[in-house]
Amino acid sequence: MANKQIVIIGAGFAGISMAKALKNKGTDVLVLDENNFHNFQPLLYQIATGGLEPYSIAYPVRRILRSCKNIRFRMAKVNKINAQNKALETSLGVIKYDRLIIATGSKTNFFNFTEETKKHLLSLKSVPEALDIRSFIFQNLERALVKWEGETVDEIISIAVVGGGPAGIEVAGALAEMKKHVIPRDFPDLDVSKMKIHLYQSSPRLLKTMSEEASSKSLEFLEAMGVEVKLNSRVTDYDGDLLVLKTGEKFKTDTVIWTAGVKGTLINGLPKDVIVRGDRIKVDAYNQVQGSNSIYAIGDVACHVTEKDPYGLPMLAPVAQQQGELLAKNILNALKGKPMKAFEYNDKGCMATIGRNKAVVDLPNFKFQGAFAWYVWMFVHIFSLVGFRNKLVAIIDWVSNYFTYDRPLGLIIRRFEKK
Amino acid sequence: MANKQIVIIGAGFAGISMAKALKNKGTDVLVLDENNFHNFQPLLYQIATGGLEPYSIAYPVRRILRSCKNIRFRMAKVNKINAQNKALETSLGVIKYDRLIIATGSKTNFFNFTEETKKHLLSLKSVPEALDIRSFIFQNLERALVKWEGETVDEIISIAVVGGGPAGIEVAGALAEMKKHVIPRDFPDLDVSKMKIHLYQSSPRLLKTMSEEASSKSLEFLEAMGVEVKLNSRVTDYDGDLLVLKTGEKFKTDTVIWTAGVKGTLINGLPKDVIVRGDRIKVDAYNQVQGSNSIYAIGDVACHVTEKDPYGLPMLAPVAQQQGELLAKNILNALKGKPMKAFEYNDKGCMATIGRNKAVVDLPNFKFQGAFAWYVWMFVHIFSLVGFRNKLVAIIDWVSNYFTYDRPLGLIIRRFEKK
Repeated sequence: MANKQIVIIGAGFAGISMAKALKNKGTDVLVLDENNFHNFQPLLYQIATGGLEPYSIAYPVRRILRSCKNIRFRMAKVNKINAQNKALETSLGVIKYDRLIIATGSKTNFFNFTEETKKHLLSLKSVPEALDIRSFIFQNLERALVKWEGETVDEIISIAVVGGGPAGIEVAGALAEMKKHVIPRDFPDLDVSKMKIHLYQSSPRLLKTMSEEASSKSLEFLEAMGVEVKLNSRVTDYDGDLLVLKTGEKFKTDTVIWTAGVKGTLINGLPKDVIVRGDRIKVDAYNQVQGSNSIYAIGDVACHVTEKDPYGLPMLAPVAQQQGELLAKNILNALKGKPMKAFEYNDKGCMATIGRNKAVVDLPNFKFQGAFAWYVWMFVHIFSLVGFRNKLVAIIDWVSNYFTYDRPLGLIIRRFEKK
Repeated sequence: MANKQIVIIGAGFAGISMAKALKNKGTDVLVLDENNFHNFQPLLYQIATGGLEPYSIAYPVRRILRSCKNIRFRMAKVNKINAQNKALETSLGVIKYDRLIIATGSKTNFFNFTEETKKHLLSLKSVPEALDIRSFIFQNLERALVKWEGETVDEIISIAVVGGGPAGIEVAGALAEMKKHVIPRDFPDLDVSKMKIHLYQSSPRLLKTMSEEASSKSLEFLEAMGVEVKLNSRVTDYDGDLLVLKTGEKFKTDTVIWTAGVKGTLINGLPKDVIVRGDRIKVDAYNQVQGSNSIYAIGDVACHVTEKDPYGLPMLAPVAQQQGELLAKNILNALKGKPMKAFEYNDKGCMATIGRNKAVVDLPNFKFQGAFAWYVWMFVHIFSLVGFRNKLVAIIDWVSNYFTYDRPLGLIIRRFEKK
């Protein structure tokens, strides 16, 4: 058993949970990721809006796995799976596996937009992307202090957020707080009333995967904070200047943050018939990929269809973590000839924050919104950060932001220009 | 007086000190900088070696100047001074001034190296450069775990630091600590003994602007930490692979950090005869630029020749700060028709750190080295950081590094490839 090599592609919630559950269990484990850090994706919007620094939500993979003597890490990009030879073609050369776990997560889905349109949309799925959004917003605030031919201040500083899921409402809320509390202090000679924040949602309600109460309360919170929420508003085009809706409605803005869709991050070499809706990989209740007895998928990229979720379990961190933990146990059992256990998602609830003292929480048997929900949100998120140092720095930044109404981290360390 | 516009180019130590001394004094002040943040340059080497995060040593200019109602800030690049019209050509258009203060600081001096050679040398004069060095070092550590054709592990992970001034010895010392305490834990399958750290100094001693005691003790510290210090060793060539000395000696390495020279950051439009050695601007005892009654230079870019310093006052933060403060008073006095006071540098001493419990301090009447010097260095540097938040986070990181012998911040957020 000791020379069976388990290769996990991806050091996100799914991959890291699985690796930790395999700690010192006798199998050889190799974790591959293109980055040398794990990051806490639910807080990327805080980086984008200057509330936290990237080091608070990112943590080196090698440090997480330091005490795991049977686990190695390699920073590598996997280009292709060669299932017949049980091998991966990677940026480091060919890597053999006995069991392969695909935990590559998800990326932004721009649906049918052209390459040209995509270039103008800002995406919020990685630390560099979040830093780019931060730079771009602050560059525009600086730029707006000068008159430019053919452009109004309104369009330079206004921001459209597309997508009414947690990422969209969180970033819109944080921008509204910046507009109210931070920009007037730092840009006293800018007429901040010209900054419009629009949130576009294609369906009739926000947070459509959560309860009706969460939807209506988050709408109420956002509108009270000055965000113009546009429901039933599908964005059909954007040329870097003019955002166009299906209804024909238009909005002039330099900044469009696209949070309206995600899709699985696929790797070449998988058979076509296991790829389903949203570029996810169809798996059975053991997270095994159809037609293979040595390839598994977990986390966002895996599509586990259940009665309750006919399009697959939701793409959420808790699903990824639970799948990773169970798969570790199942593979260890299988290697010993013992039976595997079918996965069942233990849904502990869902939450989203809109701003200071404003969050919405859906627990299985209890729903609440407002200040207490926000404290719960804070506590859960701080507690989830990796490492004591990161928890402490995040607490310092949040407590200080709370009392000063400030966001101290608006540095443009690297300029960002749209391609 | 209220409509006299003072324009300060540069938000470094000199520019910010001057601006703060002009706070609410009735004159209109405009501060220009290409970046929207002030950074604490003496600690850039900590960013490069993963000891601190960039946000600890950088602070938004707008926040520093928030309470100064008479001071505006613009993020802009100045392309040319048009002294005849008292105007600046900038990335934001033409800006008029009544008094111009050039506080543009210094940049890396590569002397007579060709453009091709420069591309291979890593520079440590800005936050992005420090982050690039960090990424490059960690990328190479990852890369060294795989065999590459035509390259040995030794040359992939070995590092040459060129320059025996404070920046050079500080970065070499920090690298030696990384090699000893951090890399073996995070890269257990790497033979770290193959990592050589060389420090090249062209003159016969390190820290040549400091005392003999500081020089000899820092040499002793570095050698005890495993750094190979090469004195009287002028680097004459580097092709990205092979470093060559004037003596003909060679060293194979992928990473050369160049700290061996700085020069003033000049702006076009100044008369040739005021530019002296090292691209600095010759100023009189009032920091006034020869032949102009409205242009001044302060900080690293200013060359104020005194009896003790025939090549100009040293390029140090305290000189810059003192010049900025005095010039503010002098200009306010001049505007009121009062006499100006000649600048005299109040030299409070000099210090440099090599590593844990190892620093050298030269006070005017007292020199000491070792653990106490290191505590003094720590205290002075933490105290000098801008903002309570930054002091606190730096203390957390340093105290934690001290007790764990660790450096937690080795994230490759953006990959760096030499051009």
